Amino acid sequence: MSRASVRPGGAMLAVVTDLRIPRDRTDDYSAEAIGARQDLLAAATGTDQPHMRHYSLDPQSLPGNIENFVGVAQVPVGLAGPLLVNGEHAQGEFLVPLATTEGTLVASYSRGMKLFREAGGITATVLDDKMQRAPVFSFDSAREARAFGEWLTEHFDEIAAAAEATTTTGKLLEIQQFSVSKLLYTRFNYSTGDAAGQNMTGKATFAACAWIKLNYPGELHFVLEGQFATDKKTSVVNMLHTRGKRVVAEATLPAALVERHLNVSTDKLFAARLKGQLGSIMSVTNNNGNHSANGITAIFIATGQDVANVAESSALYGFTELLPNGDLYVSVTLPSLIIATYGGGTGLATQREGLEIMGCYGAGKARKLAEIIAATVLAGELSLGAAVVAEEWVQAHDDLGRNRP
Amino acid sequence: MSRASVRPGGAMLAVVTDLRIPRDRTDDYSAEAIGARQDLLAAATGTDQPHMRHYSLDPQSLPGNIENFVGVAQVPVGLAGPLLVNGEHAQGEFLVPLATTEGTLVASYSRGMKLFREAGGITATVLDDKMQRAPVFSFDSAREARAFGEWLTEHFDEIAAAAEATTTTGKLLEIQQFSVSKLLYTRFNYSTGDAAGQNMTGKATFAACAWIKLNYPGELHFVLEGQFATDKKTSVVNMLHTRGKRVVAEATLPAALVERHLNVSTDKLFAARLKGQLGSIMSVTNNNGNHSANGITAIFIATGQDVANVAESSALYGFTELLPNGDLYVSVTLPSLIIATYGGGTGLATQREGLEIMGCYGAGKARKLAEIIAATVLAGELSLGAAVVAEEWVQAHDDLGRNRP
Amino acid sequence: MSRASVRPGGAMLAVVTDLRIPRDRTDDYSAEAIGARQDLLAAATGTDQPHMRHYSLDPQSLPGNIENFVGVAQVPVGLAGPLLVNGEHAQGEFLVPLATTEGTLVASYSRGMKLFREAGGITATVLDDKMQRAPVFSFDSAREARAFGEWLTEHFDEIAAAAEATTTTGKLLEIQQFSVSKLLYTRFNYSTGDAAGQNMTGKATFAACAWIKLNYPGELHFVLEGQFATDKKTSVVNMLHTRGKRVVAEATLPAALVERHLNVSTDKLFAARLKGQLGSIMSVTNNNGNHSANGITAIFIATGQDVANVAESSALYGFTELLPNGDLYVSVTLPSLIIATYGGGTGLATQREGLEIMGCYGAGKARKLAEIIAATVLAGELSLGAAVVAEEWVQAHDDLGRNRP
Amino acid sequence: MSRASVRPGGAMLAVVTDLRIPRDRTDDYSAEAIGARQDLLAAATGTDQPHMRHYSLDPQSLPGNIENFVGVAQVPVGLAGPLLVNGEHAQGEFLVPLATTEGTLVASYSRGMKLFREAGGITATVLDDKMQRAPVFSFDSAREARAFGEWLTEHFDEIAAAAEATTTTGKLLEIQQFSVSKLLYTRFNYSTGDAAGQNMTGKATFAACAWIKLNYPGELHFVLEGQFATDKKTSVVNMLHTRGKRVVAEATLPAALVERHLNVSTDKLFAARLKGQLGSIMSVTNNNGNHSANGITAIFIATGQDVANVAESSALYGFTELLPNGDLYVSVTLPSLIIATYGGGTGLATQREGLEIMGCYGAGKARKLAEIIAATVLAGELSLGAAVVAEEWVQAHDDLGRNRP
Repeated sequence: MSRASVRPGGAMLAVVTDLRIPRDRTDDYSAEAIGARQDLLAAATGTDQPHMRHYSLDPQSLPGNIENFVGVAQVPVGLAGPLLVNGEHAQGEFLVPLATTEGTLVASYSRGMKLFREAGGITATVLDDKMQRAPVFSFDSAREARAFGEWLTEHFDEIAAAAEATTTTGKLLEIQQFSVSKLLYTRFNYSTGDAAGQNMTGKATFAACAWIKLNYPGELHFVLEGQFATDKKTSVVNMLHTRGKRVVAEATLPAALVERHLNVSTDKLFAARLKGQLGSIMSVTNNNGNHSANGITAIFIATGQDVANVAESSALYGFTELLPNGDLYVSVTLPSLIIATYGGGTGLATQREGLEIMGCYGAGKARKLAEIIAATVLAGELSLGAAVVAEEWVQAHDDLGRNRP
Repeated sequence: MSRASVRPGGAMLAVVTDLRIPRDRTDDYSAEAIGARQDLLAAATGTDQPHMRHYSLDPQSLPGNIENFVGVAQVPVGLAGPLLVNGEHAQGEFLVPLATTEGTLVASYSRGMKLFREAGGITATVLDDKMQRAPVFSFDSAREARAFGEWLTEHFDEIAAAAEATTTTGKLLEIQQFSVSKLLYTRFNYSTGDAAGQNMTGKATFAACAWIKLNYPGELHFVLEGQFATDKKTSVVNMLHTRGKRVVAEATLPAALVERHLNVSTDKLFAARLKGQLGSIMSVTNNNGNHSANGITAIFIATGQDVANVAESSALYGFTELLPNGDLYVSVTLPSLIIATYGGGTGLATQREGLEIMGCYGAGKARKLAEIIAATVLAGELSLGAAVVAEEWVQAHDDLGRNRP
Repeated sequence: MSRASVRPGGAMLAVVTDLRIPRDRTDDYSAEAIGARQDLLAAATGTDQPHMRHYSLDPQSLPGNIENFVGVAQVPVGLAGPLLVNGEHAQGEFLVPLATTEGTLVASYSRGMKLFREAGGITATVLDDKMQRAPVFSFDSAREARAFGEWLTEHFDEIAAAAEATTTTGKLLEIQQFSVSKLLYTRFNYSTGDAAGQNMTGKATFAACAWIKLNYPGELHFVLEGQFATDKKTSVVNMLHTRGKRVVAEATLPAALVERHLNVSTDKLFAARLKGQLGSIMSVTNNNGNHSANGITAIFIATGQDVANVAESSALYGFTELLPNGDLYVSVTLPSLIIATYGGGTGLATQREGLEIMGCYGAGKARKLAEIIAATVLAGELSLGAAVVAEEWVQAHDDLGRNRP
Repeated sequence: MSRASVRPGGAMLAVVTDLRIPRDRTDDYSAEAIGARQDLLAAATGTDQPHMRHYSLDPQSLPGNIENFVGVAQVPVGLAGPLLVNGEHAQGEFLVPLATTEGTLVASYSRGMKLFREAGGITATVLDDKMQRAPVFSFDSAREARAFGEWLTEHFDEIAAAAEATTTTGKLLEIQQFSVSKLLYTRFNYSTGDAAGQNMTGKATFAACAWIKLNYPGELHFVLEGQFATDKKTSVVNMLHTRGKRVVAEATLPAALVERHLNVSTDKLFAARLKGQLGSIMSVTNNNGNHSANGITAIFIATGQDVANVAESSALYGFTELLPNGDLYVSVTLPSLIIATYGGGTGLATQREGLEIMGCYGAGKARKLAEIIAATVLAGELSLGAAVVAEEWVQAHDDLGRNRP
C-alpha cells in the first residue's frame, strides 16, 4: 500500500478485482467480506463512508447485480403526479417516483402532469417492442457476403430454433440485413417478454451464430456485435427500427387551459417550437424535444432499470400541431425505451418499491411501465418548453434550485 | 382518494405538487412533512416503502435537490480498480466507486484497469472545458438577422459584462453564431470553474439577452434555448464544439500483454474494430466505441452528478492504431462530459463520500474527476471490446450476471 | 419589356412559362418556335448564344425531357480507361466517357484505372436494386395509425395489384413502415427493371394510395411523399436500405504495385485513411471516401442520367484493410446509385452515344452500368487518396488544372 | 486490341491515359490529336459518336478543363422565368437557363417563379462566403496535439502570410480547430473572391503547412485533407459553418395567391410541411426541403460550375411559418453553395453564355449568381411542394414527362 500513501485519494491494492479471481474475493456478499472490503477502502484512501455503509437492502440479494460491493448510493426520491394515463396497460392516476438530485425536476414534471390531468389525461400507446443483437459476418468478397445473406433468409427457421433453444420467453422475429463491402451486418430482432432482454438476446444470438458457423457450407467469420444494435449508444438505426419499446404519449390541450397553467399562448408555444425544431435539425440531435433524459433517468434509478440505457432510451421524436381553434396537439414518441419489470435490478429493495408504487412490479407489467414513462416525458416536455417560452425558466431554477455558482 | 381506490397502483390526490403551491407542501423537509407524505403514499397506493424510508442522509440537506421527498433509492456500489492514471490533475492509483445494478460491470471495468495498470497506466488530458446556453434570435428578414449578428460581435464586451454580473466564477468566452433564414442561433460559451454550470449559464445568458433586448436598436425576439446547446441531449454540435469537459484517455498496449490478459491478439482486436467502426458509421451513432455509458452512469450515480447528462456525456470518439510492432495505441475522447465536484448533488451524504474516495470533492477537482472518468471509460472499452472478440462475452454474462430470462 | 430595359441582365416577359399555358408555348419543338424563343432571349437580355444554338440533337426528340427549349450546353467529354471490370454484367475493359470541366479529373481517374488493371481489375457486384415512393398517412391517434399499419400488412397483395396495374415492369416488393406519433411513414419498395423508376413508382404508389383510401374502413389522410424516399436528397434511410442500385467495387492491391504507381506505401495510405475515417465521423458526412461525386457526375452527364441524383448517388461507404503482407484490400459501396439505361435522357443524341461506348444502351444494361460506375469510383478514390498522402495533390492541380486564382 | 475484340463495348488499349504520360497524349487539343482519339474510340468499341463530335467550342480553350478530349455532351437547355429577385446583388427579373433532361423541371420551376413574381419577388441575401481546406495534424499524444493547437493560434499571422503568398485574391480568415485523441483536425477558412476557390485554398494551405512544418519546434505529421472540409461531400460541418456561399431566399406569400396558383390552401401546405419535416428528421437527410438538387444541377451544367459540387451545394435548411392571417412565410437557406463566375468551366463556350444570360459572367458576380440560384431553388421548392399536396404531382409528370416505364 506504499503507493496509496504517496498519493492522497489514491490506491488500495488489496481490493483488485478481476474476472478470473476467486469468487470469494469480489463476489462474497457476507457481512465479513463486505466489512473487510469497507475497512480496506477506508484505510487505503484515508476516508470513511458511513453513509454508503448505511443500507437496508440484503447483500445476499446482490449476486448478479454488483461485484466488489461496499455499500449504496442514496439517491433522494420525490413524487411527481398524479399523472393521468389513458393507456392500454396503464389506466388511471399514478404517482411517479423520481430519483434525482436536480432541483425543480420533480416540481416541473408535476406541473406538467397537473395540466394534462385537467385536460383529460395522456393517451399512451406501445407501437412496437423488440430487442436486438447484431453480429457482423465477414467474407472474402461481396458476392460471398451476398450469397450468405440469401442462405440466411432461407434458413431462418432453423436459426430461430437454435436461438430460441437458449431462452424460455424470447422469440426471434426477424433478421435484418445491411450489406456493405464484403461484410454482412445483421440485426437479430427478438421479442423478450417483460425482460429488457439484452442478455437473453446475446445468448440466443451467440447460439444462432454457432449453429450458422457449423452449418453454413462456406467459410465465414463473425463478431457478435457489429454496432448495429448499438447497446448503450443512441443511433439512427435504433430510432428508426425500435430497440426496446416504441411508445407514444399524446394529448390535445385546450388553448385556454395552457394559457392559464403555463402563462403562455399556444401560438407562441408553437412558434417557439418551430424554431426549436430547426435548431434540433441544425445541431443534429437524437431528440427534437427538450429534456426527456431528466424524467427517464429519475424513473430508471427509482425502479432498478439499467440506467446506462438512458443514452438510447432518451432519444425522442416530438410532433406538435397547432389546431385551427388554437388548441395544441402534442406528442412524444420514444423509439428506443429499454425497460424491464423483473430481472436485473428491478427486484432489489427500493427498486421494487419504486415499481410497486406504480403497480408495475413483476411479469406482464413492462408495457404498462412504458406507457407511464412516455406520459411522464410528455408532461415534462410541455412544462419545460412552456417555461422557456414564458421566460420563467431562469427564475424557477433560481427559486427552487440549489444556489449554485 | 376515491379515484385511488378505483385503480390499484393508481393515484394519491393529496400529494399533488405544483410550482405555485406553497413551499411547505413540496419543499418541507421536516420529519413530520416527510412522514405525512410517506404515509399518504403508502395509503393511496396500497403499498409500503420500508427500504426507501431507510436512509442516513439529512433531509435538511435536500432543498435545491429534490421536491416532494419521500425517501431514497439505494443503488449498490462496487469498487473498480486500482486505476492508474497519468493525468495532469489525477496522478496515481484510484479506486473508482461504481453505482449500478448491472452484473459484470464492475468486474469488467476492473479487468480493463488491471491490464492498463500493468502497461504503465492511462494518460488522461483535458482538452477543453466550457458550458453553454444557446438563445435563438428572430427577425423579419435574413438581412436583419445578419445585421444583428454583426452588432453582437461588436458589442461582445458589454454583453459579457452583463452576463458575468450574474456570477462570481463564470466567464463568457465566445458567442458562436449559426445563421439560417431570418433567425440567428447563438451558442454562448462560458468557463464555469468546478460547477457543471447549466444553471449559471442560464442565468448569465438570460441577463445578457435582457441587456441585448434593451440596447439593440432594432426589434428582435428571442427564446433562451434554440437547441444549439442541447442540454440533456446528445448532438453533433456538442461533440464538435465541446460541452462540459473534452477529455482524452490514451495508452499504448504491448501486444503480449493484451494477448495474456484478454486472450486475443492485437491484430484480431484491430480487425474487429475496423468492422465495428463501419457499423457505427452505418448505424449513425454518437459513439464509435462500445459502452461508455456503463462506466459514466455508474460514476455519476455514485458521485452525485446530474445523471440525465449521461445522454450527452456518453458520446465518444474512439481512435485506435495497430503499430508496426503489433502494439496497440488506444484512445477515447469524451467531447461532452458534464460533471461537477461541488454544487448540485455532489454534497449529499453518499455522493460526497463517492467523490472523497477519489480525492475529488470540492473546488478545484473537476478536471481531476474528468481525467479519472475518461480513464475508466478507456479501461471498460478495451475490456468489453476484447470480450466480444474473444467470444467470452456471453459466457461472462452467464457466469456473473443474474440469471435473467 | 420595360422592366428588362431597366435592369441589364434582367427579364424577358414574353417567355413566361407555366404549367397551364398552351403546349405550343413551352412545348413547341419546331424550328420556328425554337428560333423565336432564341431571338426573344437574345433581345430581352442583350446577349447572344451562338454556341447554345449549335447542336446536332433533334429537337423533336425532346418532348418529355425539357420545356422552353433554346439550345444546349456543350460539356466537354474526356475518356478515362481502360477500366478492367470483373463484374457479373460488365466483364472486360471499358473506356469511360467523363463529361466535366474540371481539369485533372480524367487524368486522375485514368491513373487509378491503370493501377487496378495491372492488379487484375476490379470486382463489381450489385447487391440490391429497388426504387421507392414514400407516402405518409395521418390519423387522429397513434392507435389508429398502428391499426392502419396492421391493415396495410394484411392487404399487401391487393395493394401491390393496384400499384402494379400502372406499370408493365415495376413490382412492389415491400412496404416498410416507420411509426411515430399519430403518423405512419411508409416506404414502398419496387423493382423497376432498367428504368431509374422515380416516375413509375410515383404513379404506382399514387394508385396504391387511391386504392387504400377507397378500401380502408377508417379515415385517413396521406401525402404522397413523406420524405422517407428522399428523392434528390441523400439520407441515412436510403443509405441503409438502398435506393436504386447498391453496388460494391473491390480489389486487393499488391503493396509493391501501389508503391510503384502511387509513390506511397500501403501502410502510409492506410494510416492516413484511419485519420480520414475519424474526420468523416466527426464532420458527419454521407461519404467516408474522397470524391465519388466527381466520377459519378461526369458519367451521369455523359450518359443522360438525371444528374440531380448525384446528391444521393454519391453517398459512399468505403472499407479498407491492410493485410498482414502489406497488400491493401480496398472497396467502395454505393448504396443509392440511381441510374437508367433507357428512358429519361438516355436516348438523346450524345447521351446514347455515351452509353454505347460502354455497351450499356437499352434494356438489360442497368446493372452493367452500375458495375462500371462503381469500379470507376473505386479507381478515383485510390488515385486521389494516394495523391493527398503523397502530397502530390496540389502539384497535380498546378500542372494540369487551369490556372485558377 | 485483342481484348477489345473479345468483349463488345470493351476496351481500347491505345488511349491509356496517365498523369505521367507526355502531355501530347492526353493534353493535345489539336484537331489531329482529337480526330485520332475519336477514330480510335470508334474503332475500339465498334460504335460511332457523330453527335459528341458535333460542337462549336474551341478545343484550344480546353486545357485545364479536360484531358483526353473526344467531344461534348449536348445537354438541352430550357428557360425558366421570369424570376423576380430582390437581392443585394441581383435585382430585377431574370431568365434562368436550366440544362436538364428531366421533363417538367423547367415548367415546375417556372410555375413557382410566376407565383413569387406576383407576390413581389424573392428577397435573397448572402450571409457568409468562404472556402476551406482542412489538414489534420498528428502527434504522439493528446497533450502534444493540444500544445500545437495553442501554437497555431499564436502564429496565425505568420501562417496567414505563408498561405496568402500563393494567391492574389485569397485571404485566410480563420483556422478552426477540432481536437480528438492525439490528432488536431483543422479547417482553414479563406475568402476567395469570385472563384470557387478549391484549388486556391489547396495551394495556400499546402504552403501554410509547409511553413508550419518548418517552424514548429516539435515533431508533427500532417495530411492535407482530414475530411473536415468534405470537398464534393455533404457534411454537417459544412452545413453549420458554411462552405462557399451561405445564401437565403425568402418571401411572404398571400394566402389567396397561393390558393389561386397552386390549388391548395396555405394551411394544408403548412400541415403537410410539418409532416415532411418530421420525415426529414427521421430519415436523416441533409435537406429538409423537396428537390433543391434539380434546379441547382440544371444551373450548374448551364453555367460551367463544377457539377460534382451538387453533392454538397444541394444541402438545404427550409423554414416556413404560417402567419396568423393565413399568409405563408417561406424560406430556404443554402449553407454550402459552391459557385464561380470566372475560372474553371465558366469561360467555355455555352457556359459563358449561360452566365451572360443572367448578367453573371466575370469578376464581381459570384454573389449575384448565388442570389439567383437561391431564389430559383425557393421557387422550385414551393412548386413541387404544392404539387405533392395538391395531388397533381403524378398527373403533371404524366402529362409533361416522357412516357417512362
